[in-house]
Order: sequence, then structure tokens, then C-alpha cells
Amino acid sequence: MKGYAIALLLLSSHCYAQTADGFHPASSNALDAQYPKVDSNSRVEIRFKAPDASKVKLNFWSGPKVDMEKQADGFWTVTTPPMAPGLHYYVINVDGAEVSDPGSTAYFGGSKWASAVEVPEAGVDYYQPKDVPHGQVREIWYHSSVTDSWRHALVYLPPDYDSAKTRYPVLYLQHGGGEDESGWIRQGKANFILDNLIAGGSTKPMIIVMANGYATRAGYVVPDMSGTAFGSPEFMKVMQERMGAFEDDVTQALIPFIDKTFRTVPDREHRAMAGLSMGGMQTFQVTFDHLDLFSYIGGFSGAGGMMMMRSGEKPDLKTAFNGALADPATFQKRVHLLWIGVGTNEPERMKAGLENLHASLDDGKIQHVFYESPGTDHEWQTWRRDLKDFAPRLFQSSNNTAAAR
Amino acid sequence: MKGYAIALLLLSSHCYAQTADGFHPASSNALDAQYPKVDSNSRVEIRFKAPDASKVKLNFWSGPKVDMEKQADGFWTVTTPPMAPGLHYYVINVDGAEVSDPGSTAYFGGSKWASAVEVPEAGVDYYQPKDVPHGQVREIWYHSSVTDSWRHALVYLPPDYDSAKTRYPVLYLQHGGGEDESGWIRQGKANFILDNLIAGGSTKPMIIVMANGYATRAGYVVPDMSGTAFGSPEFMKVMQERMGAFEDDVTQALIPFIDKTFRTVPDREHRAMAGLSMGGMQTFQVTFDHLDLFSYIGGFSGAGGMMMMRSGEKPDLKTAFNGALADPATFQKRVHLLWIGVGTNEPERMKAGLENLHASLDDGKIQHVFYESPGTDHEWQTWRRDLKDFAPRLFQSSNNTAAAR
Repeated sequence: MKGYAIALLLLSSHCYAQTADGFHPASSNALDAQYPKVDSNSRVEIRFKAPDASKVKLNFWSGPKVDMEKQADGFWTVTTPPMAPGLHYYVINVDGAEVSDPGSTAYFGGSKWASAVEVPEAGVDYYQPKDVPHGQVREIWYHSSVTDSWRHALVYLPPDYDSAKTRYPVLYLQHGGGEDESGWIRQGKANFILDNLIAGGSTKPMIIVMANGYATRAGYVVPDMSGTAFGSPEFMKVMQERMGAFEDDVTQALIPFIDKTFRTVPDREHRAMAGLSMGGMQTFQVTFDHLDLFSYIGGFSGAGGMMMMRSGEKPDLKTAFNGALADPATFQKRVHLLWIGVGTNEPERMKAGLENLHASLDDGKIQHVFYESPGTDHEWQTWRRDLKDFAPRLFQSSNNTAAAR
Repeated sequence: MKGYAIALLLLSSHCYAQTADGFHPASSNALDAQYPKVDSNSRVEIRFKAPDASKVKLNFWSGPKVDMEKQADGFWTVTTPPMAPGLHYYVINVDGAEVSDPGSTAYFGGSKWASAVEVPEAGVDYYQPKDVPHGQVREIWYHSSVTDSWRHALVYLPPDYDSAKTRYPVLYLQHGGGEDESGWIRQGKANFILDNLIAGGSTKPMIIVMANGYATRAGYVVPDMSGTAFGSPEFMKVMQERMGAFEDDVTQALIPFIDKTFRTVPDREHRAMAGLSMGGMQTFQVTFDHLDLFSYIGGFSGAGGMMMMRSGEKPDLKTAFNGALADPATFQKRVHLLWIGVGTNEPERMKAGLENLHASLDDGKIQHVFYESPGTDHEWQTWRRDLKDFAPRLFQSSNNTAAAR
């Protein structure tokens, strides 16, 4: 009952006092839910009803893992120490069952609809809806001949899309593993980030396409992955099959559909791709296999292919990415932006791949941006900051600043 | 342990045999989740991991409530009897904690992100994505002076919206109590229903606006509703405040925003409103208070205002709805369609309001459509059928068949 004592310590010192003193329902809560609550010191209070349970634990994926304490009313409660800003996924463990908190909005993460709590970042509002023109997010369905299925994607259109009648460059922006195409809007607030950046004048109005990162070729049957460990050979085999299918779906089905459906500038000079974690790895695979289609590349806490992320070694630029990084001058003519980023508080194994790539790129004199998000983990606050730094750098090259046709 | 015996009975007879024999993962499952499963006899198999729990129950909101049986691997399982077609909400009770099933997509219902399982209806595909032109669903944010907040809504645009350049009539379509603006797309498949109806030629291309049905006037603080019983005086007071705020938001903020943002025909002849359950009650309140704005009205398993639904008495048409139903001839000039519907398997207390209204309308010789969905409960299959019957009747009146300007 060690955890019980920890929870007791947390609770007895300040829980109820703080509830009356500065705790407010989190902005990430479901309709009218009073819990989770957050206070001005970024402490989080969770409350969960389980009257007959014998043990209830609160596990933040990147944060505290603590036992909750049973109250007389059948609710279990706990208050965390101060947490980093941003949206933190968590799970409640009820007598061995890992479940979501009914008080939270459901965010798709970890291959399920997970709970998360939004801890505000003091003095920061770049991802809040503000009194500026708002773009729209459209849901689209396109039929993919690669997968032989109807696929769902989200498309952000800049605020002036319906009135300006011009053509726009396109950023393809991918979610992480276990998440889906809703992530960049629901968790990432990408639409509000772009609304605010565009209103501020620093960023070119652009279309953002958020595709579902899981694709299977027609006829391929996904094996039952329950019990398959993340990163295991079986897992990697399925991932590689899916990444190949995704690459074909993006280049053969999605891009043609987008260019047909929206007023895009349909060339490589006006097409970017970025993604987080798994989406960053997909970005590097798709873009370096298709430099005829893309000229801006971003890897947010993920880049360089699956193997590179795990090898612990610096990539050999002479051979990596089809040799696209072998010669700085040639590279610079083809790629207008190579951007990689990582949170300083991410686990070492996650940082290693990015840092090795950064070091190799420096060694090879390949121009790139390496961004470190201070104090954030492998979580959405890192990726919101990434997008805020990345987006203003897009479509600004001298050879593509000509007015969209 | 009565429920335990029921579960045992269900399981011992066919559970594992059926799993190998015709059970498939439900279309409503989360990414790659193998359970829930459904077989061709509409039986549902649920599997839930809770290794240390002492009791796990499966409760369908409108369906079986059974104990689950613990297996040696720490999973609890149960297979239901054959169920009605459609999407069925359910909750797992783990030692008193009511939680969602990680295997299910999360649908917003019951004021939380709930689980549900889709049971196919044999021979029916009107709500499936088919090889027809697909409309888009747009997310919009509008600033409401009523609520002094940014509000989120979904807008379905017909397949030819971007190419045809004409103006379209608009249907405002509301979700039920405890649901939100995502319900008609996620649960209801309204976009696919309209795609298919429009492709079949029976239904006029139209815009559908799905607003969030919860509004609070600027400055109003929503009281903590936890522990407040559905339908209690406190509950009704809050609901009435919110319905008034919603009415003002729709008529003063949303409609002007929609007419400014999209190519609508902005008059009463080309504006309809419908909703399910709470949304039907809201529809009757909003439309009969504003017959200057609407001429088509639909109540799906909900109509006639909150009080009428509960009184058990037939409404007095001379006084109800501002007297709009007092005279058939006057009514028919103003309202082109009054449509009410209910599922034959809905609870009596839910059917009573609709049936009383239907009887009163008949007595008063008020032309209307009364639709009964055979064999379905207060659930989404009823409302999908409602929309399929309702939508083709819209915007067909002789006085509004002129080409949209």
C-alpha cells in the first residue's frame, strides 16, 4: 500500500483546501464535468467514482503515477504535484482495468479514446481561439485505390479561403502512433495556431491536410495486435507494411484528391509535409522517396525512419534517404526547409534519434533547423510549439514567393 | 449472483463456438480493436480486461444488462442475445465504476464519451458510405454575442457545393440530451444518408447545420449538476435557461453567421429545423417562436416542449405553440411540413408525448406526418430512419421549388 500512503500525503496536505482555493474544471473536460480540476500552480485534481473497487490508480503517460484515495462517498481522489504545461494523457486503473475518466473529453491516443487534462501555460495563448478570422476544418472522404476503401481526413482551410479565390500551398501534417487524424485539431489545436499565426502576419495562408496514418493495401489483413509489444519485430513488420501502404495512399490517392478538390498550388514548391513521432518517421519516408512532390520537411519528435530511431547510431548521410543528404549544395536546391524538433524532457531513447540526426546533418553541413522545446515531454505541448515555429518558415523561399496562380 | 448465472448461461452455450463461427469486430470499434464482435444473428460479444475486479457488468442503455464472466486470462466476457439493428450505447460497470470500453469508438452520449456497438441491419445500406459523390462536413467556430463565447458547430455541404455555385436551403439538425454536435455525423451518419439520398435523386441538395445544443447566456454560471436527477425541478430549471439561451443563439448568432458564411437561400421558405429527443423539443420551441424564420419542422422522438412530454395529456392546440396550430388553414399556409416520429420500441413515457401530440393534431385537422420506426428504441437507428424519411420531404413545396437564386 505504498501508493496509498503517497496519495494520502498529497491529499491530506492540500487537497480540499486547494479545491476551495483556486482549482477550476480543466478546459479539456467533458460537458459540465467538474473534474479534473487544475489550479494556478498547475496541480491537477482527479476524482473518479468506483464505490466497490479495492484499488484505484492514476497513471499519467508522461507524469505522475499515483494511487488514489477512497472517500466516504465512493469517489476516489488525488491531487498531483505541479505538472508541465500542456495536454497530458492519463488512464485510471480500477482493480486492474485500464479505463478512461468519464470527466475528460475523449482524445484518440494509445489506439483508444483516452483521457487527458489540459494544464494552461502561463502567459501563452497562441493555441487559444482568439478574436481573429477563423479558418474552417473540413472532413473529407476520399476513395483510395491503394486501400480500396473510403478514407477520412481533415482539412484546415485558411480564413480567407472562400473569399480570396486564390490558390494556396499545402502542408500535410501527420499525427503520432496510436493517434488518428483528429489529433492535430483536438489535441494540437492546429487550427487555432494557424488562425493566430496568419492573423499576426508571420505565416502564409495555407491549407493543412491531416490524413489517417494507418493504411492497409487492399486485401491485406491486419493481424491481431493485442499482446504485441510496441517496437517488437512483429509490430515493426506490420508498421512497415502499413507505412508503405500509407506512402502510396498519400502520393497516389490523397494528393491527387486534394489537388482536385481544393484550390491548391499543385507542385513541389508549394507542398510541405510534417508529422509527430510516428508521423515524423512517415514524413521522412514519404518526402525523401518523393522529392518530386515535396520541398519542405518537418520531423516533430520523430524523423529519419524507424530503424534510425532505434539504432542509437548517427545516420550515414551518404546512403540515408536515397542519398538526398549526400551533397549539401544539391540538397539545398531541392529542399527549402528541413526542420527537426524535440522536447528537452522527452525520454532519452526518443531524443537519441533526433539528436543523432541533428549531429549528422551538422557534420554533413546540411542546412536545417533543430528546435528544442524547453521542459516538455513526448507530448502535445512540444508539438504545438513545433508547429508554431515550423509553419511561419513554410513557403517563404524566394523561388516560391510568386503569387499563387 | 443472479446475473452471473445469466452470463454463464449465455457464455457456456455458444460464446467461444460463435467467436470462431461468424463473429466479426464491430464497425464501431476503435482502431484495430478485435472486440466488441457481432455475428450474423445480431448477437454481440464483449470482452473487457479487469484482472483484479470482483464484479463486472455490461449494461446496454436500451438493451441487455448482464453480468460478465471472468476468464483465466483476466478478461471478462459475455455474449448477448440477438439485438435490434443500429448503434447501441453501453457501459461497463467495474466494481461500481461506470466506464467505457477501450475497444469501442467513443461517442458523445450521456454527457460523456460513451461506448457503443453497431449492429448491422440486414439488407440496409442507406447510411453506409457508397460510391456516390460525397459532401463535406465542415467544422466552424462562430462568436456568439448571446453566450459571449466561441461556439463550435458542424456543417454538411452537399457534394456539388464547390462546383455548382448555386445557393442552397438549410436544415438545422439537433442532437439529443447528453449528446453534442458530433452526434448526427458520428452516430447518425447523417452525411452518408444525405449523400445517398441526393445521389438517388429523391432529395434536394441542402446544407445541414449541426449546432451544439447547450448554450448559456453570458454571465450565467452552470450549477454543478452532478447528483441532479434527469427531469428533476432543478434539472428542468437549468434546461429551460439553456433552451432559452440556445434559442437566442440559433436565431441571433448562428443563422446570421451561416447565411453570411455559406451560399444559403436566407429565407423561411428555405429553412428547416429538426432534432431528436431534447433536440426535437428545442426545435419546436425555436421554430414556433420564429415562424418568420422556419417553414419545415421535424421532431424525432421528441417534440412539443418539455412540459408536454411529461404531462401525459394531449396538448391544447388553441393555446400551444403561440396558437400556431389553432387554425388548420392558417397553419398550412405558414408551415410546409410538420413531421413527428417515434420508435415502436421506445419506452412508453417517451412515446406518450409524441402520440398525444399526433392525436391532438389529428383532432385539430393539422396536416402532419407521423412516422413509426418499427422495432427500434430511443436510439440512433430510429433517428437515422427519421432523417431518411424526413429529408426527401424538405424544400419541395410549390412555393419554394423555384431555382435557388
